[in-house]
Amino acid sequence: MNNSKFIVLEGLEGAGKTSARNIVVETLRAHGVHNVIFTREPGGTPLAEKLRELIKQGMADERVTDKAEILMLYAARVQLVENVIKPALAQGSWVVGDRHDLSSQAYQGGGRGIDQQLLLSLRDTVLGDFRPDLTLYLDLPPAVGLQRARQRGELDRIEQESFAFFERARARYQSLAAEDSSIVTIDADQPIEKVSTDIQAALQQWLQCQGLHPQALAQDRT
Amino acid sequence: MNNSKFIVLEGLEGAGKTSARNIVVETLRAHGVHNVIFTREPGGTPLAEKLRELIKQGMADERVTDKAEILMLYAARVQLVENVIKPALAQGSWVVGDRHDLSSQAYQGGGRGIDQQLLLSLRDTVLGDFRPDLTLYLDLPPAVGLQRARQRGELDRIEQESFAFFERARARYQSLAAEDSSIVTIDADQPIEKVSTDIQAALQQWLQCQGLHPQALAQDRT
Repeated sequence: MNNSKFIVLEGLEGAGKTSARNIVVETLRAHGVHNVIFTREPGGTPLAEKLRELIKQGMADERVTDKAEILMLYAARVQLVENVIKPALAQGSWVVGDRHDLSSQAYQGGGRGIDQQLLLSLRDTVLGDFRPDLTLYLDLPPAVGLQRARQRGELDRIEQESFAFFERARARYQSLAAEDSSIVTIDADQPIEKVSTDIQAALQQWLQCQGLHPQALAQDRT
Repeated sequence: MNNSKFIVLEGLEGAGKTSARNIVVETLRAHGVHNVIFTREPGGTPLAEKLRELIKQGMADERVTDKAEILMLYAARVQLVENVIKPALAQGSWVVGDRHDLSSQAYQGGGRGIDQQLLLSLRDTVLGDFRPDLTLYLDLPPAVGLQRARQRGELDRIEQESFAFFERARARYQSLAAEDSSIVTIDADQPIEKVSTDIQAALQQWLQCQGLHPQALAQDRT
């Protein structure tokens, strides 16, 4: 039976998605899941990466309208879902994604103020009922995350948004997480070791609900 | 009073949109309209031209999904409308467009079979109630147009579609033109001189309804 899943990591810039990815992979491995591919959004296919560049860098001499931004994000997303994620799941791979649709809800919906009904209708039109099985949302105050992101180097067009933009994005993340049981909130404003064990514990609990147990234990039982 | 208008030329590949544009400009000039800008779709802004390239050329190693195609088309369109067409109209320029939304209805709706309600809802979401004031639709059998397009050189990703694709696009053009009084159908499968005089006559009649008369005549009246 094909039991592969799509797990997404979400959060503001500097929330620690890359470290979280490593924890997720280790935890999956400990549960006997070795066939895992990674995606990032926007991007992850040749066309989607071209769109990522346009979205992230913008144009020197032209304002990118909010509507063009969201349409390009969904164009990139549908390429990734149809050409990479769905085929991988169908072949039995698990997929771990760095961002997915929730980012658009938070950044373009919360941050830019694009109407939420419009966004949800765009999502349903483009993706149908395709959704992540589990989303781990790394929650932290924008000031903390942005400082980390700045230390990594130059900020792109979206990372240069105002502090208030990221406050609104965080508020939208929090409210959407509160009403969707497939989104688990992790407090990312803690020492990294504590964040890691929280991610591990949350994922482990979810995997057990899916019938997947730590391998040593599973072997004991057989 | 700002009385500037947005006039669009539509039709299959090889329908004669470029010649038609020249007739339109001459006719406008004869009616005292000298301030005219041209647009083409997809394209017409730096970002929209980048998207045009992705849409027209596709990717060597990746299928462009129908949904990504239509989302990129609308991203390009909203950039052009917001950053070029609306500001030009506001400043009193007339705008003559080589293709606009009707092309998406015909090619992606008719040709590719994307659900018409989905397309109309995408149009309304992205463009609001912004519409051309007049569309001149150059109607001709695909076989005639494609032969002309082939003589011009290599065909792009969309021009390489099947004959049946263009038959479906033409049928959608025809049915939309039949139900929208702002779309005037020109029989483009005639000798070029006859097509030219038909375009001129149709535009002249429309301009008179807008209160614009041939300049010599207008001068006689004053």
